[in-house]
Amino acid sequence: MSQVQPEHNINAYMQGLGRRAREAARRMAHADTGVKNSALLAIADHIEHGRESLTRANHRDLENARRTGLEDALLDRLELTSGRIAAMAEGLRQIVALPDPVGSVSDMNYRPSGIQVGRMRVPLGVIGIVYESRPNVTADAAGLCLKAGNAAVLRGGSEAIHSNVAIAQCIARALVENALPEHAVQVVEIADREAVGELLRMPEYVDVIIPRGGKGLIERITRESTIPVIKHLHGVCHVYIDEHADIDKAVAVAYNAKTQRYGTCNTMETLLVAEPVAQQVLGILAPMYADAGVELRGCPRTANFVSEVSPASEEDWSTEYLAPILSIRVVSDLNAAIDHIHRYGSQHTDAIITENITTARRFLAEVDSSSVMVNASTRFADGFEYGLGAEIGISTDKLHARGPVGLEGLTTQKFIVVGDGHIRK
Amino acid sequence: MSQVQPEHNINAYMQGLGRRAREAARRMAHADTGVKNSALLAIADHIEHGRESLTRANHRDLENARRTGLEDALLDRLELTSGRIAAMAEGLRQIVALPDPVGSVSDMNYRPSGIQVGRMRVPLGVIGIVYESRPNVTADAAGLCLKAGNAAVLRGGSEAIHSNVAIAQCIARALVENALPEHAVQVVEIADREAVGELLRMPEYVDVIIPRGGKGLIERITRESTIPVIKHLHGVCHVYIDEHADIDKAVAVAYNAKTQRYGTCNTMETLLVAEPVAQQVLGILAPMYADAGVELRGCPRTANFVSEVSPASEEDWSTEYLAPILSIRVVSDLNAAIDHIHRYGSQHTDAIITENITTARRFLAEVDSSSVMVNASTRFADGFEYGLGAEIGISTDKLHARGPVGLEGLTTQKFIVVGDGHIRK
Repeated sequence: MSQVQPEHNINAYMQGLGRRAREAARRMAHADTGVKNSALLAIADHIEHGRESLTRANHRDLENARRTGLEDALLDRLELTSGRIAAMAEGLRQIVALPDPVGSVSDMNYRPSGIQVGRMRVPLGVIGIVYESRPNVTADAAGLCLKAGNAAVLRGGSEAIHSNVAIAQCIARALVENALPEHAVQVVEIADREAVGELLRMPEYVDVIIPRGGKGLIERITRESTIPVIKHLHGVCHVYIDEHADIDKAVAVAYNAKTQRYGTCNTMETLLVAEPVAQQVLGILAPMYADAGVELRGCPRTANFVSEVSPASEEDWSTEYLAPILSIRVVSDLNAAIDHIHRYGSQHTDAIITENITTARRFLAEVDSSSVMVNASTRFADGFEYGLGAEIGISTDKLHARGPVGLEGLTTQKFIVVGDGHIRK
Repeated sequence: MSQVQPEHNINAYMQGLGRRAREAARRMAHADTGVKNSALLAIADHIEHGRESLTRANHRDLENARRTGLEDALLDRLELTSGRIAAMAEGLRQIVALPDPVGSVSDMNYRPSGIQVGRMRVPLGVIGIVYESRPNVTADAAGLCLKAGNAAVLRGGSEAIHSNVAIAQCIARALVENALPEHAVQVVEIADREAVGELLRMPEYVDVIIPRGGKGLIERITRESTIPVIKHLHGVCHVYIDEHADIDKAVAVAYNAKTQRYGTCNTMETLLVAEPVAQQVLGILAPMYADAGVELRGCPRTANFVSEVSPASEEDWSTEYLAPILSIRVVSDLNAAIDHIHRYGSQHTDAIITENITTARRFLAEVDSSSVMVNASTRFADGFEYGLGAEIGISTDKLHARGPVGLEGLTTQKFIVVGDGHIRK
């Protein structure tokens, strides 16, 4: 399965996969909500009841991975523990509970010509998902794509191939049992990297590519894809503590945004503090960060207020640490804070702490990020917290989907027109 | 102006343009609606009052174009008659009347955590528009981009360069008079094709590319652009006359959809007729088309009902004629009609004529085109007819904008979150 195949075979394999996905998508597009839900529940059951065979397949992957010397962090991600298997099933059942976006009609109005014009929400079609080692993405992504009426082509890490195929078998069984197209979810079983290359060059069969993984993967896919990509690049998130901040809220949010979890994209990486409150705020926060083991890197003004701080380099301001490191800059006012965010931020999530409504209003309007917050921790930028249900990712793009992408982001809208024999004059 | 420049100069020129556009976009993003409207009215005035200098600049373009032997159809498009100048001004005044989409907040709700989450509509940022000979696009596109709070980089045909620069001067004057950034609208003054190449490779400065022109231009830009493209490829539009059609409506719509205008993308190119009504419908329609000078190309079954029909080739079914030519296929039923549309259509606009609600419901749900219609002419697929106001184009893409793209399509939504010191548990 994992040997390199001649290129024309890969091409033929991927073309076949694409063609089947396109056919399946046509049927999925108008599948009843009840049927889709029933299939999702059946996938969850098959995953739970198939725990043993999933674990067996996963052990083959783990053995291969150990043999090739995969590092421990990746081995951990690769492992399907019984907790993770249960979580996959639970995730699918949660998707069942989400409202079906497909077919919803909005803004239907009569026009002066007499025709009625509205918009109907419809599936995107075929979604290609390229991800790395976690096999649970196979179930999550498939569930979201199916509920939104799409077909999915899934290309996980080659080190997870046996686990992914085993999960795909649970999915295919459930689809067939519910008279849905078997090929609505297909896993690319060719390990060769060129298979991804082919996937990115099949606009006739694939409508959108969603990469999930590290920056290297995302950049490669964006560069190579001839198909639109919904991507999450990175999160250099800021909290700006305004001079009109409530100090207790400022401390609570700034501490939470950095320390609640270090490795997530919505973690604060740079703290901006208005000069008038810098002494007071940093006097409280610096020892708290020190206790939590957070390394502080600051601008020269920060060093006036904090002793345990090393100088931040120009590079620090645009770095996503994903680690217990924080850069701090003391700024003169709101304008300087917004300028800093525009210059160094990644348009992911940025927050202001202030009691002043005019300042809050300006921050909300002028900061051009996928999530802009007032008096709340950047850690809230998440599909579940926003009420979208499960998310397939967080988009740092501006077009189509911005911020957490849930079911709605996997659909689009078409215009519908109803007349009574109307013709254009 | 039109001589080939060394490549590094083009690069530096375009980078400077991009940088200025990005700066201007930041200021445009939160410009007041009143100020934007006042600038649009001023542009309209300057265009009207500057009629003489616009005409002079246009004459230089026309002379050059005649000298290089530009064909008559293109010369006609290039010409700025006084009617067209008045129409540009009128178009801008109509944009003033449209509601400003920027800043509108929707779906603002409390979440169980206590934070409020909603979406705010915001400009896309910098929009690059690449178009061909019509100089009036310069005013139309600039007006729409400005009203939606964006900056625009406009690259018209090199043959229209003097006209475009003259229009851009009217725009710049109006912007400055209204304290808006002068560089919110910039015209690329380098004729070299490489300038477009540079524009398509500046994702740091340009957020979206909108090409307007022939299929060759669109395909080239889609292939080369590293920036998302909102494009209109082509329209192979269908009308399907169902066996339950009201014959009068069927005849009126099928005639209108073909003959009201031949050169537009929403003109019907293929007529599908259900076998049970083929004799009756084609018996009325064929002579009407013949009178209008429409050439008919049909499937073998069509020839059973129509004498003046030549055989349609496989290629005919996917051809956008933009001319008085119509392909006709007699199909057995709704399924065959939908299959045909999926196979040969371009997902632009497709209509069914039927009195049966179940058939209509299926057609609306299953045909995956940007506009799907019941008992109405495909010619209605248009921003004005849909109530969007002026359109910057019709998108045949699925992501972001589908169908006619008006002001809303030039914006996106960000999440906004308001809390009271909320932290993630």
